[in-house]
Amino acid sequence: MLKKITKAAATAGHAEGATPLNAFDNALLAAGIGNINLVKVSSIIPPDADIVALPRIKPGALVPAAYAAITGRVPGELISAAVGYALPQDRTKAGVIMEYHDKVPQAEAERVIRQMLQEAFRVRGESIREASVVAAEHRVKRIGCAVAAVILLTEEDIV
Amino acid sequence: MLKKITKAAATAGHAEGATPLNAFDNALLAAGIGNINLVKVSSIIPPDADIVALPRIKPGALVPAAYAAITGRVPGELISAAVGYALPQDRTKAGVIMEYHDKVPQAEAERVIRQMLQEAFRVRGESIREASVVAAEHRVKRIGCAVAAVILLTEEDIV
Amino acid sequence: MLKKITKAAATAGHAEGATPLNAFDNALLAAGIGNINLVKVSSIIPPDADIVALPRIKPGALVPAAYAAITGRVPGELISAAVGYALPQDRTKAGVIMEYHDKVPQAEAERVIRQMLQEAFRVRGESIREASVVAAEHRVKRIGCAVAAVILLTEEDIV
Repeated sequence: MLKKITKAAATAGHAEGATPLNAFDNALLAAGIGNINLVKVSSIIPPDADIVALPRIKPGALVPAAYAAITGRVPGELISAAVGYALPQDRTKAGVIMEYHDKVPQAEAERVIRQMLQEAFRVRGESIREASVVAAEHRVKRIGCAVAAVILLTEEDIV
Repeated sequence: MLKKITKAAATAGHAEGATPLNAFDNALLAAGIGNINLVKVSSIIPPDADIVALPRIKPGALVPAAYAAITGRVPGELISAAVGYALPQDRTKAGVIMEYHDKVPQAEAERVIRQMLQEAFRVRGESIREASVVAAEHRVKRIGCAVAAVILLTEEDIV
Repeated sequence: MLKKITKAAATAGHAEGATPLNAFDNALLAAGIGNINLVKVSSIIPPDADIVALPRIKPGALVPAAYAAITGRVPGELISAAVGYALPQDRTKAGVIMEYHDKVPQAEAERVIRQMLQEAFRVRGESIREASVVAAEHRVKRIGCAVAAVILLTEEDIV
Protein backbone atom coordinates (compact mmCIF):
# COMPACT_ATOMS: atom_id res chain seq x y z
CA MET A 1 0.00 0.00 0.00
CA LEU A 2 1.17 3.57 -0.33
CA LYS A 3 1.97 3.66 3.35
CA LYS A 4 5.71 4.02 3.95
CA ILE A 5 6.57 2.22 7.15
CA THR A 6 9.48 3.85 8.92
CA LYS A 7 9.11 2.61 12.50
CA ALA A 8 8.22 -0.54 14.44
CA ALA A 9 7.35 -0.80 18.13
CA ALA A 10 6.64 -3.73 20.43
CA THR A 11 4.25 -3.75 23.38
CA ALA A 12 2.18 -6.09 25.53
CA GLY A 13 -0.62 -5.88 28.07
CA HIS A 14 -3.26 -7.86 29.93
CA ALA A 15 -6.61 -7.21 31.58
CA GLU A 16 -9.95 -8.54 32.73
CA GLY A 17 -13.24 -7.66 31.03
CA ALA A 18 -16.94 -8.40 31.25
CA THR A 19 -16.86 -10.19 27.87
CA PRO A 20 -13.99 -11.74 25.88
CA LEU A 21 -13.97 -8.81 23.43
CA ASN A 22 -13.97 -6.28 26.28
CA ALA A 23 -11.08 -8.16 27.89
CA PHE A 24 -9.22 -7.93 24.57
CA ASP A 25 -10.07 -4.23 24.27
CA ASN A 26 -8.92 -3.63 27.84
CA ALA A 27 -5.68 -5.55 27.26
CA LEU A 28 -5.02 -3.42 24.15
CA LEU A 29 -5.63 -0.28 26.25
CA ALA A 30 -3.19 -1.62 28.87
CA ALA A 31 -0.65 -2.13 26.08
CA GLY A 32 -1.16 1.45 24.84
CA ILE A 33 -2.77 0.44 21.53
CA GLY A 34 -6.47 0.38 22.42
CA ASN A 35 -7.57 3.41 20.43
CA ILE A 36 -6.17 2.49 17.03
CA ASN A 37 -7.26 0.14 14.26
CA LEU A 38 -4.92 -2.84 14.27
CA VAL A 39 -4.67 -4.51 10.85
CA LYS A 40 -3.32 -8.04 11.29
CA VAL A 41 -0.39 -8.86 9.02
CA SER A 42 1.94 -11.81 8.49
CA SER A 43 4.74 -10.73 9.82
CA ILE A 44 7.66 -8.85 8.36
CA ILE A 45 9.58 -5.71 9.40
CA PRO A 46 10.55 -3.76 6.26
CA PRO A 47 14.31 -3.28 5.81
CA ASP A 48 14.39 0.44 6.55
CA ALA A 49 12.13 0.53 9.62
CA ASP A 50 13.63 1.64 12.93
CA ILE A 51 12.68 0.01 16.22
CA VAL A 52 11.31 2.64 18.59
CA ALA A 53 9.59 2.85 21.96
CA LEU A 54 5.81 2.90 21.58
CA PRO A 55 4.91 6.47 20.56
CA ARG A 56 1.57 8.25 20.95
CA ILE A 57 -0.49 7.31 17.91
CA LYS A 58 -3.38 9.19 16.34
CA PRO A 59 -6.75 7.76 17.48
CA GLY A 60 -8.28 5.54 14.83
CA ALA A 61 -5.07 5.24 12.79
CA LEU A 62 -4.89 2.11 10.61
CA VAL A 63 -1.82 0.31 11.93
CA PRO A 64 -0.45 -2.96 10.52
CA ALA A 65 0.43 -5.27 13.39
CA ALA A 66 1.58 -8.79 14.07
CA TYR A 67 0.03 -9.81 17.34
CA ALA A 68 -0.75 -12.69 19.63
CA ALA A 69 -3.84 -12.67 21.83
CA ILE A 70 -5.35 -15.23 24.17
CA THR A 71 -8.54 -15.05 26.19
CA GLY A 72 -9.18 -17.25 29.23
CA ARG A 73 -12.46 -17.92 31.02
CA VAL A 74 -11.31 -20.39 33.69
CA PRO A 75 -10.65 -18.66 37.03
CA GLY A 76 -7.06 -19.19 38.14
CA GLU A 77 -5.82 -20.14 34.69
CA LEU A 78 -2.51 -18.64 33.54
CA ILE A 79 -2.43 -17.32 29.97
CA SER A 80 0.42 -15.69 28.04
CA ALA A 81 0.90 -13.89 24.75
CA ALA A 82 4.30 -13.11 23.26
CA VAL A 83 5.76 -11.54 20.15
CA GLY A 84 9.33 -11.12 19.07
CA TYR A 85 11.24 -9.72 16.19
CA ALA A 86 14.67 -10.34 14.74
CA LEU A 87 16.55 -8.12 12.32
CA PRO A 88 19.16 -9.41 9.87
CA GLN A 89 22.85 -8.54 9.63
CA ASP A 90 22.15 -7.67 6.00
CA ARG A 91 20.29 -4.39 6.33
CA THR A 92 18.77 -4.70 2.85
CA LYS A 93 16.80 -7.75 4.04
CA ALA A 94 13.55 -7.80 5.99
CA GLY A 95 13.15 -8.53 9.67
CA VAL A 96 10.81 -11.25 10.89
CA ILE A 97 8.09 -11.13 13.58
CA MET A 98 6.81 -14.22 15.38
CA GLU A 99 3.73 -14.54 17.61
CA TYR A 100 2.74 -17.16 20.18
CA HIS A 101 0.09 -17.61 22.82
CA ASP A 102 -0.80 -20.47 25.13
CA LYS A 103 -1.87 -21.41 28.63
CA VAL A 104 1.71 -21.24 29.83
CA PRO A 105 3.87 -18.89 31.91
CA GLN A 106 5.27 -15.86 30.12
CA ALA A 107 8.82 -17.20 30.26
CA GLU A 108 7.78 -20.30 28.32
CA ALA A 109 6.05 -18.19 25.65
CA GLU A 110 9.19 -16.07 25.35
CA ARG A 111 11.31 -19.21 24.98
CA VAL A 112 9.11 -20.44 22.12
CA ILE A 113 9.36 -17.07 20.34
CA ARG A 114 13.17 -17.14 20.46
CA GLN A 115 13.18 -20.64 19.00
CA MET A 116 10.76 -19.58 16.25
CA LEU A 117 12.88 -16.57 15.31
CA GLN A 118 15.99 -18.74 15.14
CA GLU A 119 14.29 -21.14 12.73
CA ALA A 120 12.96 -18.23 10.64
CA PHE A 121 16.50 -16.92 10.20
CA ARG A 122 18.03 -20.34 9.66
CA VAL A 123 15.66 -21.12 6.76
CA ARG A 124 16.33 -17.68 5.24
CA GLY A 125 20.10 -18.17 5.47
CA GLU A 126 20.44 -14.93 7.43
CA SER A 127 22.07 -14.20 10.78
CA ILE A 128 20.45 -12.11 13.48
CA ARG A 129 21.81 -8.63 14.17
CA GLU A 130 19.29 -7.72 16.85
CA ALA A 131 16.30 -9.42 18.44
CA SER A 132 13.78 -8.73 21.16
CA VAL A 133 10.79 -10.44 22.76
CA VAL A 134 7.89 -8.84 24.62
CA ALA A 135 5.17 -10.75 26.40
CA ALA A 136 2.35 -10.49 28.91
CA GLU A 137 0.93 -13.10 31.24
CA HIS A 138 -2.41 -12.98 33.02
CA ARG A 139 -3.95 -14.96 35.86
CA VAL A 140 -7.63 -15.17 34.97
CA LYS A 141 -10.13 -13.92 37.54
CA ARG A 142 -13.31 -14.22 35.47
CA ILE A 143 -12.59 -13.35 31.83
CA GLY A 144 -9.03 -12.29 31.04
CA CYS A 145 -6.89 -11.54 28.03
CA ALA A 146 -3.18 -11.18 27.30
CA VAL A 147 -1.93 -9.51 24.12
CA ALA A 148 1.49 -8.79 22.64
CA ALA A 149 2.07 -6.89 19.42
CA VAL A 150 4.67 -5.52 17.06
CA ILE A 151 3.13 -2.58 15.22
CA LEU A 152 4.34 -0.95 12.00
CA LEU A 153 4.13 2.84 11.81
CA THR A 154 4.36 5.67 9.32
CA GLU A 155 5.35 9.19 10.28
CA GLU A 156 1.72 10.24 9.74
CA ASP A 157 0.44 7.81 12.41
CA ILE A 158 2.38 9.48 15.21
CA VAL A 159 0.98 12.40 17.23
CA MET B 1 -1.90 4.12 6.25
CA LEU B 2 -2.30 7.12 4.01
CA LYS B 3 -5.99 6.50 3.74
CA LYS B 4 -7.98 9.33 5.31
CA ILE B 5 -11.17 7.88 6.72
CA THR B 6 -14.02 10.36 6.60
CA LYS B 7 -17.10 8.14 6.85
CA ALA B 8 -18.34 5.06 8.67
CA ALA B 9 -21.41 2.97 7.82
CA ALA B 10 -23.08 0.00 9.49
CA THR B 11 -24.88 -2.84 7.74
CA ALA B 12 -25.95 -6.45 8.23
CA GLY B 13 -27.23 -9.35 6.16
CA HIS B 14 -27.84 -13.09 6.09
CA ALA B 15 -28.10 -15.83 3.49
CA GLU B 16 -27.81 -19.50 2.65
CA GLY B 17 -25.00 -20.90 0.48
CA ALA B 18 -23.78 -24.20 -0.91
CA THR B 19 -20.59 -23.95 1.19
CA PRO B 20 -19.77 -21.93 4.33
CA LEU B 21 -17.69 -19.44 2.32
CA ASN B 22 -20.45 -19.04 -0.26
CA ALA B 23 -22.94 -18.46 2.55
CA PHE B 24 -20.59 -15.75 3.90
CA ASP B 25 -20.20 -14.24 0.42
CA ASN B 26 -23.98 -14.30 -0.08
CA ALA B 27 -24.57 -12.71 3.34
CA LEU B 28 -22.08 -9.95 2.44
CA LEU B 29 -23.95 -9.41 -0.85
CA ALA B 30 -27.23 -9.23 1.10
CA ALA B 31 -25.59 -6.61 3.34
CA GLY B 32 -24.46 -4.59 0.32
CA ILE B 33 -20.74 -5.21 0.85
CA GLY B 34 -20.15 -8.35 -1.20
CA ASN B 35 -18.08 -6.82 -3.98
CA ILE B 36 -15.41 -5.07 -1.89
CA ASN B 37 -12.31 -6.23 -0.04
CA LEU B 38 -13.03 -6.10 3.68
CA VAL B 39 -9.89 -5.64 5.75
CA LYS B 40 -10.61 -6.72 9.34
CA VAL B 41 -9.58 -4.15 11.96
CA SER B 42 -9.83 -3.82 15.73
CA SER B 43 -12.17 -1.59 16.10
CA ILE B 44 -12.07 2.18 16.30
CA ILE B 45 -13.94 4.99 14.53
CA PRO B 46 -11.54 7.91 13.95
CA PRO B 47 -12.59 11.19 15.60
CA ASP B 48 -13.51 13.03 12.43
CA ALA B 49 -15.47 10.30 10.65
CA ASP B 50 -19.16 10.88 9.97
CA ILE B 51 -21.73 8.12 10.28
CA VAL B 52 -23.54 7.70 6.97
CA ALA B 53 -26.00 5.34 5.32
CA LEU B 54 -24.22 2.65 3.34
CA PRO B 55 -23.13 4.29 0.07
CA ARG B 56 -22.32 2.61 -3.25
CA ILE B 57 -18.67 1.58 -3.05
CA LYS B 58 -16.23 0.96 -5.89
CA PRO B 59 -15.92 -2.76 -6.67
CA GLY B 60 -12.74 -4.23 -5.17
CA ALA B 61 -12.08 -1.25 -2.89
CA LEU B 62 -9.96 -2.08 0.18
CA VAL B 63 -12.25 -1.20 3.06
CA PRO B 64 -11.29 -1.47 6.75
CA ALA B 65 -14.13 -3.09 8.66
CA ALA B 66 -15.00 -4.41 12.08
CA TYR B 67 -17.36 -7.28 11.57
CA ALA B 68 -19.01 -10.26 13.17
CA ALA B 69 -19.86 -13.35 11.14
CA ILE B 70 -21.30 -16.73 12.09
CA THR B 71 -21.95 -19.76 9.92
CA GLY B 72 -24.37 -22.51 10.89
CA ARG B 73 -24.75 -25.99 9.41
CA VAL B 74 -27.51 -27.40 11.61
CA PRO B 75 -30.96 -27.11 9.97
CA GLY B 76 -33.33 -25.08 12.11
CA GLU B 77 -30.55 -23.46 14.15
CA LEU B 78 -30.85 -19.73 14.83
CA ILE B 79 -27.65 -17.68 14.39
CA SER B 80 -27.04 -13.97 14.87
CA ALA B 81 -24.29 -11.45 14.19
CA ALA B 82 -24.26 -7.92 15.58
CA VAL B 83 -22.05 -4.86 15.57
CA GLY B 84 -22.44 -1.56 17.29
CA TYR B 85 -20.60 1.68 17.61
CA ALA B 86 -20.56 4.42 20.18
CA LEU B 87 -19.16 7.93 19.73
CA PRO B 88 -17.84 10.04 22.61
CA GLN B 89 -19.09 13.41 23.87
CA ASP B 90 -15.50 14.61 23.39
CA ARG B 91 -15.30 14.89 19.61
CA THR B 92 -11.49 14.79 19.65
CA LYS B 93 -11.65 11.20 20.95
CA ALA B 94 -12.20 8.04 18.96
CA GLY B 95 -15.39 6.04 18.73
CA VAL B 96 -15.47 2.34 19.54
CA ILE B 97 -16.91 -0.58 17.56
CA MET B 98 -17.90 -3.90 19.15
CA GLU B 99 -18.76 -7.18 17.42
CA TYR B 100 -20.61 -10.26 18.63
CA HIS B 101 -22.00 -13.46 17.17
CA ASP B 102 -23.62 -16.51 18.68
CA LYS B 103 -26.38 -19.07 18.32
CA VAL B 104 -28.87 -16.67 19.87
CA PRO B 105 -31.76 -14.46 18.70
CA GLN B 106 -30.80 -11.10 17.21
CA ALA B 107 -32.24 -9.22 20.19
CA GLU B 108 -29.86 -11.05 22.54
CA ALA B 109 -26.85 -10.25 20.33
CA GLU B 110 -27.91 -6.60 20.27
CA ARG B 111 -28.20 -6.59 24.06
CA VAL B 112 -24.66 -7.95 24.41
CA ILE B 113 -23.30 -5.28 22.03
CA ARG B 114 -24.87 -2.46 24.07
CA GLN B 115 -23.32 -3.87 27.25
CA MET B 116 -19.92 -4.15 25.54
CA LEU B 117 -20.04 -0.56 24.32
CA GLN B 118 -20.96 0.66 27.79
CA GLU B 119 -17.94 -1.11 29.29
CA ALA B 120 -15.67 0.20 26.54
CA PHE B 121 -16.69 3.76 27.37
CA ARG B 122 -16.60 3.23 31.13
CA VAL B 123 -12.97 2.01 31.00
CA ARG B 124 -12.02 4.93 28.75
CA GLY B 125 -13.63 7.45 31.11
CA GLU B 126 -15.76 8.82 28.28
CA SER B 127 -19.50 9.29 27.98
CA ILE B 128 -21.51 8.27 24.93
CA ARG B 129 -22.87 10.98 22.62
CA GLU B 130 -24.42 8.61 20.09
CA ALA B 131 -24.63 4.85 19.67
CA SER B 132 -26.22 2.39 17.30
CA VAL B 133 -26.43 -1.37 16.87
CA VAL B 134 -27.14 -3.33 13.69
CA ALA B 135 -27.64 -7.07 13.54
CA ALA B 136 -28.88 -9.93 11.42
CA GLU B 137 -30.35 -13.27 12.44
CA HIS B 138 -30.71 -16.33 10.27
CA ARG B 139 -32.65 -19.58 10.63
CA VAL B 140 -30.38 -22.17 9.01
CA LYS B 141 -31.86 -24.28 6.21
CA ARG B 142 -28.72 -26.15 5.13
CA ILE B 143 -25.70 -23.83 5.41
CA GLY B 144 -26.38 -20.29 6.54
CA CYS B 145 -24.47 -17.20 7.55
CA ALA B 146 -25.22 -13.94 9.34
CA VAL B 147 -22.88 -10.95 9.16
CA ALA B 148 -22.87 -7.46 10.61
CA ALA B 149 -20.23 -4.84 9.88
CA VAL B 150 -19.12 -1.29 10.50
CA ILE B 151 -17.02 -0.19 7.55
CA LEU B 152 -14.61 2.75 7.36
CA LEU B 153 -14.56 4.73 4.15
CA THR B 154 -12.53 7.34 2.32
CA GLU B 155 -14.00 9.69 -0.24
CA GLU B 156 -12.17 7.73 -2.94
CA ASP B 157 -13.99 4.49 -2.04
CA ILE B 158 -17.42 5.89 -2.88
CA VAL B 159 -18.90 5.74 -6.40
CA MET C 1 -7.16 2.84 0.81
CA LEU C 2 -5.12 4.99 -1.56
CA LYS C 3 -3.45 1.93 -2.95
CA LYS C 4 -4.30 1.41 -6.61
CA ILE C 5 -4.29 -2.29 -7.30
CA THR C 6 -3.23 -3.04 -10.85
CA LYS C 7 -2.15 -6.67 -10.67
CA ALA C 8 -3.17 -9.96 -9.06
CA ALA C 9 -1.08 -13.13 -8.80
CA ALA C 10 -1.82 -16.62 -7.50
CA THR C 11 0.65 -18.94 -5.79
CA ALA C 12 0.82 -21.91 -3.42
CA GLY C 13 3.39 -23.74 -1.34
CA HIS C 14 3.88 -26.24 1.46
CA ALA C 15 6.54 -27.05 4.04
CA GLU C 16 7.43 -28.56 7.39
CA GLY C 17 8.45 -26.45 10.39
CA ALA C 18 9.44 -26.84 14.03
CA THR C 19 6.27 -25.03 15.15
CA PRO C 20 2.94 -24.39 13.37
CA LEU C 21 3.84 -20.74 12.74
CA ASN C 22 7.26 -21.69 11.38
CA ALA C 23 5.58 -24.25 9.11
CA PHE C 24 3.28 -21.47 7.88
CA ASP C 25 6.26 -19.13 7.42
CA ASN C 26 8.16 -21.84 5.54
CA ALA C 27 5.15 -22.60 3.34
CA LEU C 28 4.87 -18.88 2.51
CA LEU C 29 8.58 -18.85 1.62
CA ALA C 30 8.02 -21.91 -0.60
CA ALA C 31 5.19 -20.01 -2.29
CA GLY C 32 7.44 -16.98 -2.87
CA ILE C 33 5.54 -14.70 -0.48
CA GLY C 34 7.38 -15.25 2.80
CA ASN C 35 9.05 -11.86 3.08
CA ILE C 36 6.02 -9.63 2.68
CA ASN C 37 3.18 -8.56 4.98
CA LEU C 38 0.04 -10.34 3.86
CA VAL C 39 -3.11 -8.44 4.81
CA LYS C 40 -6.07 -10.83 4.71
CA VAL C 41 -9.03 -9.55 2.69
CA SER C 42 -12.44 -10.86 1.66
CA SER C 43 -12.00 -11.55 -1.51
CA ILE C 44 -12.45 -9.47 -4.63
CA ILE C 45 -10.26 -8.72 -7.67
CA PRO C 46 -10.82 -5.09 -8.75
CA PRO C 47 -12.15 -4.66 -12.30
CA ASP C 48 -8.96 -3.23 -13.79
CA ALA C 49 -6.40 -5.59 -12.24
CA ASP C 50 -4.39 -7.83 -14.57
CA ILE C 51 -3.54 -11.40 -13.68
CA VAL C 52 0.25 -11.85 -13.73
CA ALA C 53 2.85 -14.44 -12.79
CA LEU C 54 4.12 -13.87 -9.25
CA PRO C 55 6.64 -11.00 -9.50
CA ARG C 56 9.47 -10.15 -7.13
CA ILE C 57 7.95 -8.02 -4.37
CA LYS C 58 9.66 -5.52 -2.10
CA PRO C 59 10.48 -7.06 1.32
CA GLY C 60 7.97 -5.98 3.95
CA ALA C 61 5.45 -4.64 1.43
CA LEU C 62 1.85 -4.57 2.73
CA VAL C 63 0.01 -6.84 0.30
CA PRO C 64 -3.73 -7.55 0.42
CA ALA C 65 -4.30 -11.26 -0.05
CA ALA C 66 -7.06 -13.83 0.01
CA TYR C 67 -5.51 -17.03 1.24
CA ALA C 68 -6.18 -20.48 2.59
CA ALA C 69 -3.80 -22.14 5.04
CA ILE C 70 -3.92 -25.41 6.93
CA THR C 71 -1.50 -26.82 9.47
CA GLY C 72 -1.30 -30.50 10.32
CA ARG C 73 0.40 -32.21 13.25
CA VAL C 74 -0.49 -35.84 12.60
CA PRO C 75 2.34 -37.71 10.82
CA GLY C 76 1.15 -39.12 7.52
CA GLU C 77 -1.88 -36.85 7.29
CA LEU C 78 -2.63 -35.25 3.92
CA ILE C 79 -3.56 -31.54 3.98
CA SER C 80 -4.44 -29.21 1.13
CA ALA C 81 -5.02 -25.50 0.61
CA ALA C 82 -6.52 -24.02 -2.53
CA VAL C 83 -7.54 -20.65 -3.92
CA GLY C 84 -9.14 -19.72 -7.17
CA TYR C 85 -10.35 -16.66 -8.94
CA ALA C 86 -12.90 -16.00 -11.63
CA LEU C 87 -13.20 -12.87 -13.74
CA PRO C 88 -16.49 -11.71 -15.30
CA GLN C 89 -17.37 -11.23 -18.96
CA ASP C 90 -18.39 -7.69 -18.01
CA ARG C 91 -15.02 -6.06 -17.50
CA THR C 92 -16.49 -3.26 -15.40
CA LYS C 93 -17.42 -5.81 -12.70
CA ALA C 94 -15.18 -7.26 -10.03
CA GLY C 95 -13.62 -10.71 -10.01
CA VAL C 96 -14.14 -13.08 -7.10
CA ILE C 97 -11.60 -15.09 -5.10
CA MET C 98 -12.48 -18.21 -3.13
CA GLU C 99 -10.36 -20.07 -0.56
CA TYR C 100 -10.60 -23.61 0.83
CA HIS C 101 -8.53 -25.91 2.98
CA ASP C 102 -9.12 -29.36 4.43
CA LYS C 103 -7.58 -32.73 5.13
CA VAL C 104 -8.20 -33.84 1.56
CA PRO C 105 -6.15 -34.41 -1.61
CA GLN C 106 -5.34 -31.30 -3.64
CA ALA C 107 -7.65 -32.39 -6.47
CA GLU C 108 -10.61 -32.42 -4.08
CA ALA C 109 -9.77 -28.92 -2.78
CA GLU C 110 -9.53 -27.68 -6.35
CA ARG C 111 -12.91 -29.23 -7.17
CA VAL C 112 -14.51 -27.40 -4.21
CA ILE C 113 -13.01 -24.08 -5.32
CA ARG C 114 -14.43 -24.43 -8.83
CA GLN C 115 -17.87 -25.15 -7.37
CA MET C 116 -17.59 -22.12 -5.05
CA LEU C 117 -16.63 -19.81 -7.92
CA GLN C 118 -19.56 -21.06 -9.99
CA GLU C 119 -21.98 -20.27 -7.18
CA ALA C 120 -20.39 -16.85 -6.61
CA PHE C 121 -20.97 -15.97 -10.25
CA ARG C 122 -24.45 -17.48 -10.39
CA VAL C 123 -25.66 -15.36 -7.44
CA ARG C 124 -24.10 -12.24 -9.00
CA GLY C 125 -25.80 -12.93 -12.35
CA GLU C 126 -22.46 -12.79 -14.14
CA SER C 127 -20.77 -15.26 -16.44
CA ILE C 128 -17.13 -16.29 -16.15
CA ARG C 129 -14.65 -15.00 -18.72
CA GLU C 130 -11.57 -16.60 -17.16
CA ALA C 131 -10.89 -18.68 -14.07
CA SER C 132 -7.94 -20.41 -12.46
CA VAL C 133 -7.26 -22.50 -9.37
CA VAL C 134 -3.95 -22.99 -7.56
CA ALA C 135 -3.40 -25.38 -4.69
CA ALA C 136 -0.79 -27.16 -2.61
CA GLU C 137 -0.99 -30.47 -0.79
CA HIS C 138 1.33 -31.68 1.93
CA ARG C 139 1.92 -35.06 3.55
CA VAL C 140 2.73 -34.22 7.19
CA LYS C 141 6.00 -35.51 8.61
CA ARG C 142 5.89 -33.78 12.00
CA ILE C 143 4.33 -30.31 11.65
CA GLY C 144 3.35 -29.27 8.13
CA CYS C 145 1.50 -26.48 6.41
CA ALA C 146 -0.05 -25.87 3.00
CA VAL C 147 -0.96 -22.39 1.79
CA ALA C 148 -2.50 -20.96 -1.35
CA ALA C 149 -2.99 -17.27 -2.02
CA VAL C 150 -4.19 -14.70 -4.50
CA ILE C 151 -2.35 -11.46 -3.81
CA LEU C 152 -3.27 -7.94 -4.96
CA LEU C 153 -0.43 -5.67 -6.04
CA THR C 154 0.30 -2.07 -6.83
CA GLU C 155 3.11 -0.99 -9.13
CA GLU C 156 5.01 0.26 -6.07
CA ASP C 157 5.06 -3.23 -4.49
CA ILE C 158 7.06 -4.76 -7.34
CA VAL C 159 10.89 -4.76 -7.41
